[in-house]
Amino acid sequence: MEEHHISAFIEYANSIAIVAFALSGALTAGHYRLDPFGVMVLAAITAVGGGTIRDLIMGVEVFWLSRNDYIYSIVITSLITMLFVRRPSHVPMQLLLVVDAFGLAMFAVLSAQKALDYQMTGLMAVIMGTITGVAGGIIRDIICNQIPLLLRREFYAVVALFSASLFVIFESLGFSENFSLFVSMICGLVLRLAAIYWGFSLPAFAIDD
Amino acid sequence: MEEHHISAFIEYANSIAIVAFALSGALTAGHYRLDPFGVMVLAAITAVGGGTIRDLIMGVEVFWLSRNDYIYSIVITSLITMLFVRRPSHVPMQLLLVVDAFGLAMFAVLSAQKALDYQMTGLMAVIMGTITGVAGGIIRDIICNQIPLLLRREFYAVVALFSASLFVIFESLGFSENFSLFVSMICGLVLRLAAIYWGFSLPAFAIDD
Amino acid sequence: MEEHHISAFIEYANSIAIVAFALSGALTAGHYRLDPFGVMVLAAITAVGGGTIRDLIMGVEVFWLSRNDYIYSIVITSLITMLFVRRPSHVPMQLLLVVDAFGLAMFAVLSAQKALDYQMTGLMAVIMGTITGVAGGIIRDIICNQIPLLLRREFYAVVALFSASLFVIFESLGFSENFSLFVSMICGLVLRLAAIYWGFSLPAFAIDD
Repeated sequence: MEEHHISAFIEYANSIAIVAFALSGALTAGHYRLDPFGVMVLAAITAVGGGTIRDLIMGVEVFWLSRNDYIYSIVITSLITMLFVRRPSHVPMQLLLVVDAFGLAMFAVLSAQKALDYQMTGLMAVIMGTITGVAGGIIRDIICNQIPLLLRREFYAVVALFSASLFVIFESLGFSENFSLFVSMICGLVLRLAAIYWGFSLPAFAIDD
Repeated sequence: MEEHHISAFIEYANSIAIVAFALSGALTAGHYRLDPFGVMVLAAITAVGGGTIRDLIMGVEVFWLSRNDYIYSIVITSLITMLFVRRPSHVPMQLLLVVDAFGLAMFAVLSAQKALDYQMTGLMAVIMGTITGVAGGIIRDIICNQIPLLLRREFYAVVALFSASLFVIFESLGFSENFSLFVSMICGLVLRLAAIYWGFSLPAFAIDD
Repeated sequence: MEEHHISAFIEYANSIAIVAFALSGALTAGHYRLDPFGVMVLAAITAVGGGTIRDLIMGVEVFWLSRNDYIYSIVITSLITMLFVRRPSHVPMQLLLVVDAFGLAMFAVLSAQKALDYQMTGLMAVIMGTITGVAGGIIRDIICNQIPLLLRREFYAVVALFSASLFVIFESLGFSENFSLFVSMICGLVLRLAAIYWGFSLPAFAIDD
């Protein structure tokens, strides 16, 4: 595949991930009865929060700063959600979960790639991938006054960790960047979908009083 | 008006906004029975949290870092609040709301101006204005374990968005910076005060289970 | 004492502080029944959250970015906690409080030193020390949906403020860096341990409805 095909793919994938996470933020906002601006704020934080924290920690320009299209995607996603969704039954939840799983795997792998591009170690690349995958959702849940479900019962953070690690391993084994990107993303996606389908969950670490 | 008059005005306005937001943080701290250092921490986060996040995202020096006077204002505001306020009835709530409204409009417009000064797009200037206006209050409410009211019922985030947008529009129409600053600030202030007086609120976006 | 002895001491002290705070995060995670990855995320945020915010605000490279050993310490601390702790009675709480107090005093003093090294004012050095001492614990409590105890009843933020201030005062009086580091750390540690032993607490600032 040629270079510009890959970057076009990455571009699309990134946008889909942004929209998926914005949708998840907007739906959560509806559950907690935020006003329209609250909906947009929550959608934006969920969609770009993880990548923003990653970029601040890496010390590079925040990714959405020089581009208006990410912001437009979030606003449009919020508006469409508010116009068309009135009950959870209006949302094709299966589709949402698949789209969110795709976003999670994409964000994790693309962030690991970004970290390696900036000469960070493999360990740091995995951490950047995990931060990008989970931080937006953690802040969304914090604002809505919940203990983040994704740290508790869902097989979620581990998917970000797994797909970012896979990418780093493939890269260090000398595979082509295409191969590493696609395969690690798809493995992450499959793991997350399998976890949803069969209801995987990790045992809780519980200290009983 | 001469250049140094404007910058003196901006200086004063910024300080009033800091004090107003610090007061709001300190009063919230009293409601949740924090200890004196907790009161100062909450006052500081409310007052400078939004501007700090704005500066981190913009990649410029955090605004309070090279100046001690912002910190002194926050400490003094916290001390005075703790000394003189024992009941909500001790606070002239109407005055507080007006001062807070002034702070909100000032922060939003001055942040939009700062973003344009750094060659950011109008959209980003509006976003920086909104972040500065609302982020401190959101973190204050998060620490106190509440779903931020300003995302739910209050006509608040929209005021930041409105006054920052107005400033960007005036600037793009070629009005003088003075005019743009004053008029957009005053319009934001009036909108917020009208919302308080007549009890405007936006309809909640509610997804019913 | 020779230069490399000091830096070796600082190195060890920093690592102990990281482990102490990671342990505190992991134990809190067990109380709220997070899954193993949630435990690691919470341990990491508690351990490096304060220093990360300090470095972002100071505009310097985040301290754990170029070093893998901090991350390994956190992962190992989390794993050991999950393997061996099943009841709070399994944790020697007295030891934990002492280790945490040591971490608090170390983080506060070392951060004040870092700030002075970067030519910041004494006031900013004290603020950086306080942020580093308390921010990780505040975020830990926010994620677990609690109003941070350290802002409410514990004699905690004041210890960070006190030991960072002491360091700045000693430095400005021209004492050697060794002396300033050790004495301010030990005074902070003693103050915290005394507060735990005799149950000091600051009076709450309460606004009654």
